[in-house]
Amino acid sequence: MKRSDRLVAITNYLIENPMKLVSLPFFSTTYDAAKSSISEDLTIVNKVFKQEGMGYLKSISGAAGGVKYIPEHSLDNSKKFIDDLCKRLEDPSRLLPGGYLFMSDLLGEPSTVRNIGKIFASEFSKLEIDVVVTVATKGIPLAYAVASFLNVPVVIVRRDPKVTEGSTVSINYVSGSSRKIQTMILPKRSLHEGAKVCIIDDFMMAGGTINGMKDLLKEFNAQVKAIGVLVEAEDEEEERVVDNYTSLIQISNVNVKNNKIKVNKGNFLGKS
Amino acid sequence: MKRSDRLVAITNYLIENPMKLVSLPFFSTTYDAAKSSISEDLTIVNKVFKQEGMGYLKSISGAAGGVKYIPEHSLDNSKKFIDDLCKRLEDPSRLLPGGYLFMSDLLGEPSTVRNIGKIFASEFSKLEIDVVVTVATKGIPLAYAVASFLNVPVVIVRRDPKVTEGSTVSINYVSGSSRKIQTMILPKRSLHEGAKVCIIDDFMMAGGTINGMKDLLKEFNAQVKAIGVLVEAEDEEEERVVDNYTSLIQISNVNVKNNKIKVNKGNFLGKS
Repeated sequence: MKRSDRLVAITNYLIENPMKLVSLPFFSTTYDAAKSSISEDLTIVNKVFKQEGMGYLKSISGAAGGVKYIPEHSLDNSKKFIDDLCKRLEDPSRLLPGGYLFMSDLLGEPSTVRNIGKIFASEFSKLEIDVVVTVATKGIPLAYAVASFLNVPVVIVRRDPKVTEGSTVSINYVSGSSRKIQTMILPKRSLHEGAKVCIIDDFMMAGGTINGMKDLLKEFNAQVKAIGVLVEAEDEEEERVVDNYTSLIQISNVNVKNNKIKVNKGNFLGKS
Repeated sequence: MKRSDRLVAITNYLIENPMKLVSLPFFSTTYDAAKSSISEDLTIVNKVFKQEGMGYLKSISGAAGGVKYIPEHSLDNSKKFIDDLCKRLEDPSRLLPGGYLFMSDLLGEPSTVRNIGKIFASEFSKLEIDVVVTVATKGIPLAYAVASFLNVPVVIVRRDPKVTEGSTVSINYVSGSSRKIQTMILPKRSLHEGAKVCIIDDFMMAGGTINGMKDLLKEFNAQVKAIGVLVEAEDEEEERVVDNYTSLIQISNVNVKNNKIKVNKGNFLGKS
């Protein structure tokens, strides 16, 4: 293969296989080129990836070495993207009873979801996450987006036991906002002991659901290394029960009566 | 930008924006190169994409013209992938009460989900789909994978009305397998009139759920152009109520008592 062809093929391979260590001999054999040529290809790819703000190639030397594509969402790109999301969320017609926000349209856009996933994955890429955990239903697309960039599996906590899961572990927890006792379950075979976990969800008020997930994960001896939520909402009546989380957007002063809402950047970018 | 750099950048741009018409002037401006050079770049990219079995570039001529990346999963790649999935599903320990199959581990792997999505997207890419519809919960990751390659939004039908959706349209339907009456809902603002829809789900027995979705979509005057299910299961007691679907895998002769299961290719590849 010629250099120009190889650059296209290698770029595609790396994008499709983020966080995967690929040996030089693999590229050398697959694209029928000398290792030195492959090295030069990778230098070009790395330079352009950095320029485009999409991450970089990490070289690991030694016999078991190779190269690993670490996806990143550059801070500039992230700022622009979050600003834009904030603007879209400010629309008062999004306000729903109970202080919730209609976001299904945004969360239905694959490219928006992919960008959110890339931001969290950049942030958590050094934590050696083994698995991304979310709770049904709305967090699921975000969790898959994060997981696809971290190249790890997704595990879904459910609120209703389903026959199709086999035996499960369950806990009861108190929902922060409604003060109701709810149940969460996770299939027994879904997590291995001591797994390093990152929790992803779309929305957090007091944090009761995420706290419930943490309790459930304790039953599997999992280590919660990171928590990422797209939107956190301040609730004046309820104290937050979760700390150490990353939020992209924060909403406050929700006033359903006056159809008002205040949308700020979350703690990922710092308050504006 | 030099050709070698442009090839990396253009490849990345096209992969991140499938099914999107991109004008030559856009590339020309973004990467600071003559249109003739960009044309040559695109010829190289197209050739390698085809070689790698990942799709092709469609050129649209005229003033509003440009180039569109049509993702494809080559038949060879699809065969290999489905064969491999069949082998993994044959494991009798996957059998669950009621003739269901434990698939959460497979559906938790982002790369597996992405491949399944790419196969369906290849199959449906000419149907001008406006939106991918699925039902919570297990179909969601598959639906997003399909949608990301078709570059269209996802809409999720739910079985439980949630406060965070605003006003909804609901129908009752009879579940094929359990003969119970169930409810399905879709937020009013989720679909526009006459939308061309593709339904994606992970599992289909008699097809009652998918039939329910079709009925619900009628309320929105949506046109169901395609139905894709990962696994269809033959149910001897129940006649199938859905036709014109694409399945990747078919299971039959499920015998929970004897821990036996037969896994075949679905109608996408023809019966083996």
